[in-house]
Amino acid sequence: MSFKTDILQIIKDESRVVFDKQIEGRFLSDTLGRLVGKADALVFAASTEEVSALLKYADANKISVTPRGAGTNLVGSTVPQNGGIIIDFSKMNKILEFDADTFTATVESGILLKDFQAFVESKGFFYPPDPGEKSASIGGNIATNAGGMRAVKYGVTRDYVRGLEVVLADGSVTWVGSKNVKDASGLSLKNLIIGSEGTLAVITKCILKIIPKPEYSKSVLVPFADLESGISTVQKILFANANPTAVEFVERKVVELGEKFTGIKYPHPEAAAYLLLTFDGKQNEVKENLEIIKNVVLQNGALDFVIPESPERLEEIWKVRGCLVKAVEATSEQEPVDLVVPIDKVAEFIEFVNKTQKKVGMQMVAFGHAGDGNVHLCVVRGSRSEEEWKTELQKNMECVYSKAYELGGLTSGEHGIGLSKRHYFLKETKNTNLQMMNAIKTSLDPHHILNNKISYVL
Amino acid sequence: MSFKTDILQIIKDESRVVFDKQIEGRFLSDTLGRLVGKADALVFAASTEEVSALLKYADANKISVTPRGAGTNLVGSTVPQNGGIIIDFSKMNKILEFDADTFTATVESGILLKDFQAFVESKGFFYPPDPGEKSASIGGNIATNAGGMRAVKYGVTRDYVRGLEVVLADGSVTWVGSKNVKDASGLSLKNLIIGSEGTLAVITKCILKIIPKPEYSKSVLVPFADLESGISTVQKILFANANPTAVEFVERKVVELGEKFTGIKYPHPEAAAYLLLTFDGKQNEVKENLEIIKNVVLQNGALDFVIPESPERLEEIWKVRGCLVKAVEATSEQEPVDLVVPIDKVAEFIEFVNKTQKKVGMQMVAFGHAGDGNVHLCVVRGSRSEEEWKTELQKNMECVYSKAYELGGLTSGEHGIGLSKRHYFLKETKNTNLQMMNAIKTSLDPHHILNNKISYVL
Repeated sequence: MSFKTDILQIIKDESRVVFDKQIEGRFLSDTLGRLVGKADALVFAASTEEVSALLKYADANKISVTPRGAGTNLVGSTVPQNGGIIIDFSKMNKILEFDADTFTATVESGILLKDFQAFVESKGFFYPPDPGEKSASIGGNIATNAGGMRAVKYGVTRDYVRGLEVVLADGSVTWVGSKNVKDASGLSLKNLIIGSEGTLAVITKCILKIIPKPEYSKSVLVPFADLESGISTVQKILFANANPTAVEFVERKVVELGEKFTGIKYPHPEAAAYLLLTFDGKQNEVKENLEIIKNVVLQNGALDFVIPESPERLEEIWKVRGCLVKAVEATSEQEPVDLVVPIDKVAEFIEFVNKTQKKVGMQMVAFGHAGDGNVHLCVVRGSRSEEEWKTELQKNMECVYSKAYELGGLTSGEHGIGLSKRHYFLKETKNTNLQMMNAIKTSLDPHHILNNKISYVL
Repeated sequence: MSFKTDILQIIKDESRVVFDKQIEGRFLSDTLGRLVGKADALVFAASTEEVSALLKYADANKISVTPRGAGTNLVGSTVPQNGGIIIDFSKMNKILEFDADTFTATVESGILLKDFQAFVESKGFFYPPDPGEKSASIGGNIATNAGGMRAVKYGVTRDYVRGLEVVLADGSVTWVGSKNVKDASGLSLKNLIIGSEGTLAVITKCILKIIPKPEYSKSVLVPFADLESGISTVQKILFANANPTAVEFVERKVVELGEKFTGIKYPHPEAAAYLLLTFDGKQNEVKENLEIIKNVVLQNGALDFVIPESPERLEEIWKVRGCLVKAVEATSEQEPVDLVVPIDKVAEFIEFVNKTQKKVGMQMVAFGHAGDGNVHLCVVRGSRSEEEWKTELQKNMECVYSKAYELGGLTSGEHGIGLSKRHYFLKETKNTNLQMMNAIKTSLDPHHILNNKISYVL
């Protein structure tokens, strides 16, 4: 039997299978669309059973499999490297159970973050992980251990995954984790799979932890005359016992791109940098925390402490922060970088980036999650030719990643490694750790059919 | 060369090595002392280099290795199964770095929890994990992913481990994790090793997350006329957005054992059960939360809402809660059980336990962490002969664990599996998951020298 016949025997619905040249380019890439792979079949899976049957077949025939959520990743994690089958989860997007009694909801992995957030909030609950891209799938969020703005107070996706239904490379279906809060019962397979970028197993269902919805939330914009005072104030904010939800930083020159893009103006254009803080909880608690932080920042050189006067103004402030990548992209192609450094090294790292961009003449727009050391850079192509861009980008990025590692940092805080960051990750990661990762990979996926040559997989 | 000569060539200090029959019994057991293993050498390691050299030697010669923290475990995790070498970490107990700027402290794995807690609190910081046994080592806490009272608000040991220096079976030394807050850079080896009970690697150094010390803390005792109303109120407490630090439950009949043991009296002896709650944070916040919870519990059938009138009385209340295991042990040998069930199943499970103990005539004293479904049982031997105790205990425990799994529960919430719970864990765990765990074990420790036949290791 041919490959096509085999696939159609497993997926008994032709409308959910596309072969070869019929596969649209966007399914062979990530959200940036620059890296494009090849595949022999694209299957829109409808059930765990189908995924299991596909993997069993693929494993027996050593066919590569690329799981795909909403394809919003920025690092080429959904770019098929060896042909084979793309399993798309967009049709597996149901909420299977809402269980207020255990503070959990169980969903299929293809559900979009925004749909899940809206659902739980309609029930008076809250799903804290809040990555910028709300159209990502929950399965994708788990595969990259996505972070987001609220990580300072609430942690990252890992902290909200109670259990996962997964399909192993050989087609076995099992659950790792459970609705239980505590677990000291054998190896934490769940935690191993979270953040593994689809290299160990395919996630089909997710039990997610939800919490009661905070009653009240307030954001504040804090301008500083220089970046250094802004960043060094972050630690004082974190130490003040005021439990901030988000601690974002953005340089004035970056805000200007956002202002131009949106037509919105930030106050204090004379500032060199801003901190953008959010606090949530009970009203009195938030008000008390705001007072504490007001004192902290003003004692540390803040030019002002601006609480947006209306919900509309608040939305405007966040709109500028939210549009930065798009604002850069409106001017040029850009390479998104998602480094993380220890929180006391953010200022030194940003300074290094600022010096480097001057030295090498490549614009690197920096902003990000100061409260957890997660620095986003948009590295701007400008008018470079394809060849120049490729060569110069790699050279400059090697230098930037190397500095981050020298400061104790890592390649990725929340986007994952995928294809795009693999070169830097393999270069900077200790050989022992790479060997451990690859030994584990081989132990669970002996024929290396799952997302091979992605991330750490040699 | 002989084994002894080899070991003394690695550890060039005879005062830190004990051989064969010279090894004291307590080093061959856990804190209960019932299961006793055999070993050829006990080494008090002084450095990572020594641990590395020992493992390299052991791996080359296929000699079993049993890492040992303070030996306070309750499940036989430190009972050597195949002779070989015990590596004791009690001399590797230094604080290596206190880094307020990144909210971390780096320690050797043999440091005791109580010493570490005292150290960070003296610096104005706080290490939230709070297992009952304060004389446990931090390395042991990490190996079992220890929990404790404060887990409801603060999470468990896993949530406070930023990085680990580990020695692999072949003697390689590496770091997994780092000081970074976010990490989406390859497989989470750190999270795999946490809770692995010494089966994958030996932990030598730990970077721990610390947080600013809460300003204020208040506990409250809430008596209920029946267990069911007490337990069903727990979820209402958790839903009330009042962020409790601890939510403990204890039945009146269990309190009576503690009262007898300590001479301290709880109020409301007519109650059938008590909840013991703690709140911490800023003073106003705690007071507001107490008001909220007072309303919640009184609306749900609480007999009273007793805030201990003095620090001494508070200490008394916690003393009774803290002594329960010892109170039981004063009357008879007991088997400690550390089951976990989803939080909405605690009442049903306790009811089942109460019925079972009546039916089979074996006393099972239940108390525990209601806020996270972690139920502790002390199963009492009474006047049974060794043989009767062994046979009846296993039969009754099979029944209890089976019920817990039926309710979606797990063998252990915080003690780990070790030797004592292995029978039940292997019986209840899905074969696919056991296979995954054992495949990973073999990938990292091909000769199975580390804690073999412990926990999940087949």
